[in-house]
Amino acid sequence: MTSSWLDEVKWDESGLVPAIAQDAASGRILMMAWMNREALALTAETGVAHYYSRSRKRLWKKGEESGHLQHVRELRLDCDGDAIVMQIAQTGGIACHTGRESCFYRRWENGGWRVVDAVLKDPATLYRH
Amino acid sequence: MTSSWLDEVKWDESGLVPAIAQDAASGRILMMAWMNREALALTAETGVAHYYSRSRKRLWKKGEESGHLQHVRELRLDCDGDAIVMQIAQTGGIACHTGRESCFYRRWENGGWRVVDAVLKDPATLYRH
Repeated sequence: MTSSWLDEVKWDESGLVPAIAQDAASGRILMMAWMNREALALTAETGVAHYYSRSRKRLWKKGEESGHLQHVRELRLDCDGDAIVMQIAQTGGIACHTGRESCFYRRWENGGWRVVDAVLKDPATLYRH
Repeated sequence: MTSSWLDEVKWDESGLVPAIAQDAASGRILMMAWMNREALALTAETGVAHYYSRSRKRLWKKGEESGHLQHVRELRLDCDGDAIVMQIAQTGGIACHTGRESCFYRRWENGGWRVVDAVLKDPATLYRH
C-alpha cells in the first residue's frame, strides 16, 4: 500500500490514528477506536469499517463476530491529519460491546459518570463463542 | 485533584485522553483534541472546554486567543473510559484554526482527500499577534 493519501495521515508513534464513527442518520457518535494503515486502506477499499485492536494487537473488522458491520458513507480527515471521522450505517443499531447503541453511555453529572443509556441487547447474545 | 471520576478515565501513557467536540445544535463533529487530568477537571468545573496542547506542551483553553470558546452542554465517557465526547456550543461558529466550522473539512474521494468545506473567516484575523 503506497497510496499517497495514506501518507497524508499523521500516524502516531505506534502507527495508529484515532477514528470516530458517527451514525450517518442520527448524527450520534457511536464509538472511537484506532486504525493502522492497513485498517484505513481496507475501510476505504471495502466501505466497511476496519480498526486495529490495541488489546488484541491485530486488525479488527468491526462486527466480524457480532455481525454488526459498519457501512461507511463518508470518510473525513482533520486539519492536522491526525484524526478520522466516518459517517456510518450501523448494522443492528448497536456499536458497543455492552449491547448499547453507543459506547458513550456515561454522562458526567454532579461529579461522577452516570450510566444514562439502556442496554438494547444482552451482550452475551452478541458474540459467537 | 483527587476526584474519583477522574480516576475512572483511562489516561494513556502520556496522561492524555482524546476528546471529541460535537456541536450540540447541528450534531457536527467539530474537532478532536487531547485532555490531560487538569484540562478535563477544568472543563467540568468551568463548563468551558480545556485541552492539552501536545505541540505547545501546555494547558490550552480553547478560544483563549480567538475568543472562540466552547461552552460544554454535556460530557460523556465511553465504555473503556478512554475517550470523551462533549456536546458544545461553539462561539463564533468556527472551531478550526483554518477558519472553518469543523477541522474535518477533507473528504475521501476517489483515492484522495478533497477539501469540501469553505473557509468562513480568514485565519489571519482569528488570532491576536
